[in-house]
Amino acid sequence: MLPKRIEIDEVGPREGMQFEGIGQPDKIATADKIELVDLLSDTGLSRIQVTSFVSPKQVPQMADAEQVVAGFKKKPGVEYTAIYLNDVGLHRAAATGKLKIEGKITLTGSETFTLRNQRRDFKQDFEMQRKIAGLYRENGIPVEKSSVAAAFGCNYEGDVPLERVITCIEQLHEISSEVGSTLRQCNLADTMGWANPEQIRRTVAAIRRRWPSLRIGMHLHDTRGLAIANVYAALLEGVDYFDTAVAGLGGCPFAGHKGAAGNVCTEEVVFLCNEIGVETGIDLSKMIECSRLAEELVRHPVPSKLLRGGMLARHPRQAAE
Amino acid sequence: MLPKRIEIDEVGPREGMQFEGIGQPDKIATADKIELVDLLSDTGLSRIQVTSFVSPKQVPQMADAEQVVAGFKKKPGVEYTAIYLNDVGLHRAAATGKLKIEGKITLTGSETFTLRNQRRDFKQDFEMQRKIAGLYRENGIPVEKSSVAAAFGCNYEGDVPLERVITCIEQLHEISSEVGSTLRQCNLADTMGWANPEQIRRTVAAIRRRWPSLRIGMHLHDTRGLAIANVYAALLEGVDYFDTAVAGLGGCPFAGHKGAAGNVCTEEVVFLCNEIGVETGIDLSKMIECSRLAEELVRHPVPSKLLRGGMLARHPRQAAE
Repeated sequence: MLPKRIEIDEVGPREGMQFEGIGQPDKIATADKIELVDLLSDTGLSRIQVTSFVSPKQVPQMADAEQVVAGFKKKPGVEYTAIYLNDVGLHRAAATGKLKIEGKITLTGSETFTLRNQRRDFKQDFEMQRKIAGLYRENGIPVEKSSVAAAFGCNYEGDVPLERVITCIEQLHEISSEVGSTLRQCNLADTMGWANPEQIRRTVAAIRRRWPSLRIGMHLHDTRGLAIANVYAALLEGVDYFDTAVAGLGGCPFAGHKGAAGNVCTEEVVFLCNEIGVETGIDLSKMIECSRLAEELVRHPVPSKLLRGGMLARHPRQAAE
Repeated sequence: MLPKRIEIDEVGPREGMQFEGIGQPDKIATADKIELVDLLSDTGLSRIQVTSFVSPKQVPQMADAEQVVAGFKKKPGVEYTAIYLNDVGLHRAAATGKLKIEGKITLTGSETFTLRNQRRDFKQDFEMQRKIAGLYRENGIPVEKSSVAAAFGCNYEGDVPLERVITCIEQLHEISSEVGSTLRQCNLADTMGWANPEQIRRTVAAIRRRWPSLRIGMHLHDTRGLAIANVYAALLEGVDYFDTAVAGLGGCPFAGHKGAAGNVCTEEVVFLCNEIGVETGIDLSKMIECSRLAEELVRHPVPSKLLRGGMLARHPRQAAE
């Protein structure tokens, strides 16, 4: 049931830096952000989320998005992407001329969460995604990728029923086909750390039954300590696409805390995959070097345990790591 | 395949305090150790490892073992145990008159590890276990429990082959039956954080095939970040006994590091079990209070992510937590 190979989308430079800068937007210098992207480019990663094109008023720590993109060195074979939540952001990202602009739309499991974060209710959010899809079409970009945010639960609304996730994916298909595209991928985001491994397996299985050819990805947060178990559960269901963050940086609502948990940690996911025979294409020792750099840049202990525990390759092994 | 209910053996007061005190044996006052045991007694835990009766010269932070045992308040229904590695320790533990003395023997997956830690090679260690088993028999205690330390890998020797684990369990059966007992349980310890979820499943399955009625327990360390995934893998194989440490304290060779990973965290295992419908008998909010106390006592951020992320019971749920 395990996939032979997975693809990892590194979100540390985007989601990690976004949360590190809460309340202190200048904490990480632009040059340091660029250094991290460049070091990550050399690990074997095939995808890196570089920054967010969001409102500099609401998210001042991402005000240097254009400079970060201008500064990093493109490595052949790596796809560099960015996040944007509306048409303004999409235009800014496209204007850099350096990023892969993918037709991606997002709906959310919890209406309260959408209202608080995007100031849109379900209906308005659906319409915004249609508008974004229309913009993609105008630019000749197929809308093939999608996400469901807060797919497993919400700190404002509590449990998010599986039926809501299914409804979101129905609507994402609808928007995609309205613009003449075919939805190929949907990432499920455990934005607030509610998922458990059995729920992951039930959810993936239900989506597979309904849409057998849709690629399913996972965006998991480690807010309550279960992220790596959730990765393993997803692997058991054949999931082959994961958003992860170097050093375990990022996206926790408690990120102001020193040492608070963020996204599932890239090097720990790579380590898990190495140990159970799933290919990632990533050099673990290089990824640990990136984690060490990330810890220097954020100037507090990062969640990564592997960074401290050390990889196993320095010990005698029956099979090479 | 998931068990209906698991039993948790809380090792924080023993393994946590042992490692916290490395190089600073008086760091945690005896009264504080007692306070932690008393608070843990009120969570619904059925087993608590209180202390270690080991050489005060080698492990000065456990020199107050007798005082800790004298000080805590026994709660009916809770089994209080302690660790000892030889006949001297066993006599000290029994002399307290307050602990459950269980006939337990331990062998180790890695000979270098045994040599370094117990100054015994495999043969000498086997003979020591026979000697301890003989002492149990003299005192009318059946030898029904056992452990294999370093069962999944070793920082000195590397991979520990499954065949070595099987040999250990054969020898543990042999020692037990020599003293007229029947071995009922074997705990597999991932002493140095080498295990991965697939290895856990293969190992448990192989032991089950060979000894179908032997209860298998897990003692997992989070040195490289995979402990909770390993717990989930063990649950998938029906394992129903886990050693865990409140707050994730304990037993990592890197415990001198602030925030370094220790044993798998009790409250995160309870949280996982609650979420996937496996009973533990433990009150999660009370366990989180114990974690908070543990963090106060050790005076550095503990590994527990749930302590910071917060339990889900304060949010609307479809089913009660």
